[in-house]
Amino acid sequence: MSLLAIGSVAFDQIETPFGKTDKIIGGSGTYIALASSYFTDKTKLVGVVGEDFRQDDLDMMQQHGILTEGVQIKKGEKSFFWAGRYHADLNTRDTLVTELNVLGDFDPIIPESYQDCEYLMLGNLTPAVQKTVIERLHKRPKLIVMDTMNFWMTEPFIEELKEVMTMVDVVSINDEEARLLSGEYSLVKAAKKILAMGPDYLIIKKGEHGALLFSDNQIFFAPALPLEEVFDPTGAGDTFAGGFIGHLASTKDISFENMKRAIIYGSAMASFCVEKFGPERLIKLSQEDIEDRIQEFINLVQFEIEYN
Amino acid sequence: MSLLAIGSVAFDQIETPFGKTDKIIGGSGTYIALASSYFTDKTKLVGVVGEDFRQDDLDMMQQHGILTEGVQIKKGEKSFFWAGRYHADLNTRDTLVTELNVLGDFDPIIPESYQDCEYLMLGNLTPAVQKTVIERLHKRPKLIVMDTMNFWMTEPFIEELKEVMTMVDVVSINDEEARLLSGEYSLVKAAKKILAMGPDYLIIKKGEHGALLFSDNQIFFAPALPLEEVFDPTGAGDTFAGGFIGHLASTKDISFENMKRAIIYGSAMASFCVEKFGPERLIKLSQEDIEDRIQEFINLVQFEIEYN
Repeated sequence: MSLLAIGSVAFDQIETPFGKTDKIIGGSGTYIALASSYFTDKTKLVGVVGEDFRQDDLDMMQQHGILTEGVQIKKGEKSFFWAGRYHADLNTRDTLVTELNVLGDFDPIIPESYQDCEYLMLGNLTPAVQKTVIERLHKRPKLIVMDTMNFWMTEPFIEELKEVMTMVDVVSINDEEARLLSGEYSLVKAAKKILAMGPDYLIIKKGEHGALLFSDNQIFFAPALPLEEVFDPTGAGDTFAGGFIGHLASTKDISFENMKRAIIYGSAMASFCVEKFGPERLIKLSQEDIEDRIQEFINLVQFEIEYN
Repeated sequence: MSLLAIGSVAFDQIETPFGKTDKIIGGSGTYIALASSYFTDKTKLVGVVGEDFRQDDLDMMQQHGILTEGVQIKKGEKSFFWAGRYHADLNTRDTLVTELNVLGDFDPIIPESYQDCEYLMLGNLTPAVQKTVIERLHKRPKLIVMDTMNFWMTEPFIEELKEVMTMVDVVSINDEEARLLSGEYSLVKAAKKILAMGPDYLIIKKGEHGALLFSDNQIFFAPALPLEEVFDPTGAGDTFAGGFIGHLASTKDISFENMKRAIIYGSAMASFCVEKFGPERLIKLSQEDIEDRIQEFINLVQFEIEYN
């Protein structure tokens, strides 16, 4: 029941109204793997970093039980670097720097020891790389979840994105991306159009407004936890995805009922992520922290209405 | 267990991307009473209309079991009239016409037969009128719920609004109003400040993003039903309030657990309201429609997670 996660493993420099970081570890692959590590001890990470990447950070991931054999280290090259500044309400941000570096010609290598993966999480990367990963697996995983972003929903990437969408089971995007991809404002209509493009399930993330899970004939909604303060939203969507697939992989159950639970676990992990800069809070969680947080979600939404 | 509802009873003329109405019945009192009428047959309405108001509309309310003895009809005067145009996303609107007419010097009269009310719903009106209604009741109701709006949160009304807030149990406002009233962007922080102003409970309505119920130490969240199309949001907040207090009045239970259910009933009623122009959909509901809709809410948010 091992889980293969692919995504960027990178440096981020983040500025929010509350402060500014140095170059800290970031990237979709990092957040996904850290989140899923609380659910399964077999998260196998695929990615690429430069010589500048810190051994400490790789050690930290390994201490979380993340397998990093698939993380290539490119001598003489630099890691992907992103710097951004969030606006006052933290819902929007400006990108200050994007240095692709090693990601520019990333050719994902799947170690032989990863070939047994049953759950595949495709973090946000070019659709071409996502497709390559699927093709390089000898056996199709039981479940493939794909995250992506608005950048790949325009020319010249959109056709390749649509092709990957026909190869996966679950697509995870935010509300703005769902509207862009479908041309529909109503998320219910958008979901219908997107499900018709290939995936059996669609997750639409609405940030502080929660997340929706759609299948052909069912909808589930999970709120975001109302927080006193969102400190830094970087990585929240990836963390959500990591908690989602981590729960599915650990329970080996891909029914809609279990996906509902997975959405709640994903939301809980994302609620931790935003409490501190980067993955800081995510690195130091206990199982008790997670169970307490899940209980908060239960208290937040559960009610009893019965008809006789 | 009778319910007294006060609010505007008026004419609206509504324009949305889907069409335009003539002058149709509207007003906070109308929506509240129609929504609550599905829960209790003793909604006693207080309001004022002009000679131009239609007997048909009063008959329609009476057919819903709404008592209209407290609705004054002013000879030679005109009913309150509002005309507005919604923007493409239906989240914002422009007011085209506001004619206060009979509402300008509204002096609410509480018929003797209304004095037994145990539940009081103060629909959006000037805080002065809301206060007068409370003062004219010989016995304080078991529960007072107040709706209001941003207009009363500025000079010269804000002081009177704050005074009314100390006299009520539940305040119901939207997210933008909560931020304006508290000066806090975080709704959790805003809720703390607003609860400190007097009420024991605060409802923050977030439109298509659902509603939050806060007490000193508990939070409950109810989603809005994801709809293919929102046709006309006019009256949705009032309808929510009517369903909320209607459920509480019919069950005679003002515990937090029952308020959670009341929030779900309010959300269900609001989800009907937005499906057609004005109160059109709200007028023709069956108990089965409501039960089916409640089941949709249950399916939308319920999940099972248990720790051993």
